[in-house]
Amino acid sequence: MNLKPTKPLSGFIELLPAQQRWFDECARRMQEVLKTAGFARLDLPAVERFEVLTDKDDFDDIATEMYLFQKGDTKMGLRYDGTVGLARYVAGHLSDLAFPFRTYQFAKNYRAERPQKGRYREFYQIDLDILGIETLSTNYDVEIVATMGKTLDSIREYIGDTFVRVGSRPFWNAAFEYFGIEGEDAQRAALVLVDKREKMEPEEFKAALAGMLGEKVAIEIITVFSDGYKALLNKNKALDAAINELEAFYERVTALGVDAVVDLSIVRGHGYYTGIVFEFYFKGKDGVVTHLGGGGRYENLVGKFSKTKIIGVGAAFGPSRILVPLLEDNKIDLLPFESNIDAAVLVMGQAQTAYAMSALNALRDANIVAVPYLDTDKKFKNQMEFADKIKSRFSIIIGEDEVKEQAVTIKNMTSGEQSKMTVKEAIKAIQSNV
Amino acid sequence: MNLKPTKPLSGFIELLPAQQRWFDECARRMQEVLKTAGFARLDLPAVERFEVLTDKDDFDDIATEMYLFQKGDTKMGLRYDGTVGLARYVAGHLSDLAFPFRTYQFAKNYRAERPQKGRYREFYQIDLDILGIETLSTNYDVEIVATMGKTLDSIREYIGDTFVRVGSRPFWNAAFEYFGIEGEDAQRAALVLVDKREKMEPEEFKAALAGMLGEKVAIEIITVFSDGYKALLNKNKALDAAINELEAFYERVTALGVDAVVDLSIVRGHGYYTGIVFEFYFKGKDGVVTHLGGGGRYENLVGKFSKTKIIGVGAAFGPSRILVPLLEDNKIDLLPFESNIDAAVLVMGQAQTAYAMSALNALRDANIVAVPYLDTDKKFKNQMEFADKIKSRFSIIIGEDEVKEQAVTIKNMTSGEQSKMTVKEAIKAIQSNV
Repeated sequence: MNLKPTKPLSGFIELLPAQQRWFDECARRMQEVLKTAGFARLDLPAVERFEVLTDKDDFDDIATEMYLFQKGDTKMGLRYDGTVGLARYVAGHLSDLAFPFRTYQFAKNYRAERPQKGRYREFYQIDLDILGIETLSTNYDVEIVATMGKTLDSIREYIGDTFVRVGSRPFWNAAFEYFGIEGEDAQRAALVLVDKREKMEPEEFKAALAGMLGEKVAIEIITVFSDGYKALLNKNKALDAAINELEAFYERVTALGVDAVVDLSIVRGHGYYTGIVFEFYFKGKDGVVTHLGGGGRYENLVGKFSKTKIIGVGAAFGPSRILVPLLEDNKIDLLPFESNIDAAVLVMGQAQTAYAMSALNALRDANIVAVPYLDTDKKFKNQMEFADKIKSRFSIIIGEDEVKEQAVTIKNMTSGEQSKMTVKEAIKAIQSNV
Repeated sequence: MNLKPTKPLSGFIELLPAQQRWFDECARRMQEVLKTAGFARLDLPAVERFEVLTDKDDFDDIATEMYLFQKGDTKMGLRYDGTVGLARYVAGHLSDLAFPFRTYQFAKNYRAERPQKGRYREFYQIDLDILGIETLSTNYDVEIVATMGKTLDSIREYIGDTFVRVGSRPFWNAAFEYFGIEGEDAQRAALVLVDKREKMEPEEFKAALAGMLGEKVAIEIITVFSDGYKALLNKNKALDAAINELEAFYERVTALGVDAVVDLSIVRGHGYYTGIVFEFYFKGKDGVVTHLGGGGRYENLVGKFSKTKIIGVGAAFGPSRILVPLLEDNKIDLLPFESNIDAAVLVMGQAQTAYAMSALNALRDANIVAVPYLDTDKKFKNQMEFADKIKSRFSIIIGEDEVKEQAVTIKNMTSGEQSKMTVKEAIKAIQSNV
């Protein structure tokens, strides 16, 4: 018989136990920040109706990175982000939720992309959103950025310092009008170019702009980047409002300790953003800057599901994408995560099992992580090897004598010290040595 | 434009925030038990290769409850239990893991069943397993049952008392031989009938047995249930070994405080069990007994993935299946889960925002769950309504005077008491009132 493959599908991740403990610790810290900031966790289905995932009519109509399938007459697929499900959920529960509604998701998403480092087909994403009915102060935009910053800070010892680049959709809307770029299509095409700016050479960018909008407008757009946008103050109301909003936003996030820069090349791909947009990065020790995620304000989240106007500000970033490459590059010291075992309970002979199991229970009831070795006919040497292998801090040895004396022999696996005591005393000894 | 549906797909669950907080608290408690018992969490892909999920050649060959799909040439599907992925993972990491390997999964699984109460198409399942290479003491079977019992006990206040029914595959193997049922096929057919016994009327069960095996053997099998199996002691070695193992197992789990009964109608459907098998139930206050999950010993977990012989004992049960029906029936008092908010920070005017945000940060840094109301032009009355609506324990009111005095006004939302103090004092007041 041919053996089946043991590797997961390409682009799907699975970790070794120590790696998983580290990943889970990062996940715990990040979620702790979100919970303390009053974001309620939502756990939405990983499968959604086809018509919820897309506006298209059939599978063939989308050049798709989606995993789509059909059961009976029902077309469906795996979710590719947290936004679509959130919009559906909120529209369906308008009267059940308190607004502004603060929520986060920590969930697996699926994209059939070409796998590469940091790009997985199954990946965790954190989505955090604050949603208001009809109205939502831009103060919440500040809070979202500050909260995302704090969330990333909780794992700073692993990923390093982060900073955020802040852009503005209203600025570009006003600027394009001012430059005389007429019509929605032309403006959208210009915005797409601005979005691509970073991936192009300066000359290439200028040529593309000029080809589309003429030399004059191209130069006007190019002078906007870095501090050039300030020259557009006092030209008209819309530009003033956008620039003032952007600068006020910058000042407020900075006051909260977020390392921020204004950078108008940040526009975010998605069509639904309508206000401030932002992207987080971390600075590697080698000077390499890595994109972590971002978000912004959107004016009409649930429009496809409800006539109620829901305004939101949200952010999304991918723990798998951020953390797993660090494991792949061996950049994480996993030693503290190699074991979480406090005590290996070694049982010298089957007759000692009942007593050993009651000692085991007592240890666990005291929140001591305890693992028994229950192949009781194995030699002392083998059992001690097991305690070593699982990197237990202590071993608790139970033989005939210990049962007779209602005691245990406890061995500190680091110092080698060993002594006989009651289970109660052993619990104290383990708890006082952390 | 037609609005899209807001309900999730039939058989897919989504909870309201208070329900989710309760579910998450149950999940936390159960996982705490498993971690203290030294089980390492594994987080395996939800998507597996088609050939990993099944031995069949094509989608059409299985009367399937699986969600299957294809990308390019690769056929795949959503996992329907935790065992298949675990077998693949363990076979692929034999040299990376310490054996006996103790692991648990808390993961979503997928089955396209007809949805009904307690049966969902997407559901969480907890799988716990202890795996040994070549050999594994049956002491671990005792530990698995005791651990599953403790895990369920951690949510006893919601689900009530549980008990376990214990059966034995070796007993039936020996008994069928002794009764003269020849050949694997006949024995398997007889076992299937035994498995179905509980769903049949006694007369119907007897008739089915008699039709298949003759009147004499039918009566022999029927007398086995409850205590009748003891009459088969001292007939032959295989029967003696099986009965002794079963009774010793019963005594050992009982000694650990597990409420157990020997019940030979428990055989578990899956073909792979080879030793003790068990199923957990809870007794409702109304006398109704509900199946929670179960498990047993299997001799050849990874046979399809590796030539190494892995022996295991495992258990599986479904938190969604256990917990969600209690929500659907309004059997859970969600009041303690309606809110986790300690402080609503109310900001009277935009000029106060910067000060309010720094107070908010200080509260959160002290692990106080704090939510700001940042539509700062709203009236005091509206802001207080928000604090009520989110059921915050306190509100922290920040107006011009408070900023001037570098203070906050704190209001206990239960007693209505209100006073002005520093942020530090407010933190102490909130922390001391739990």
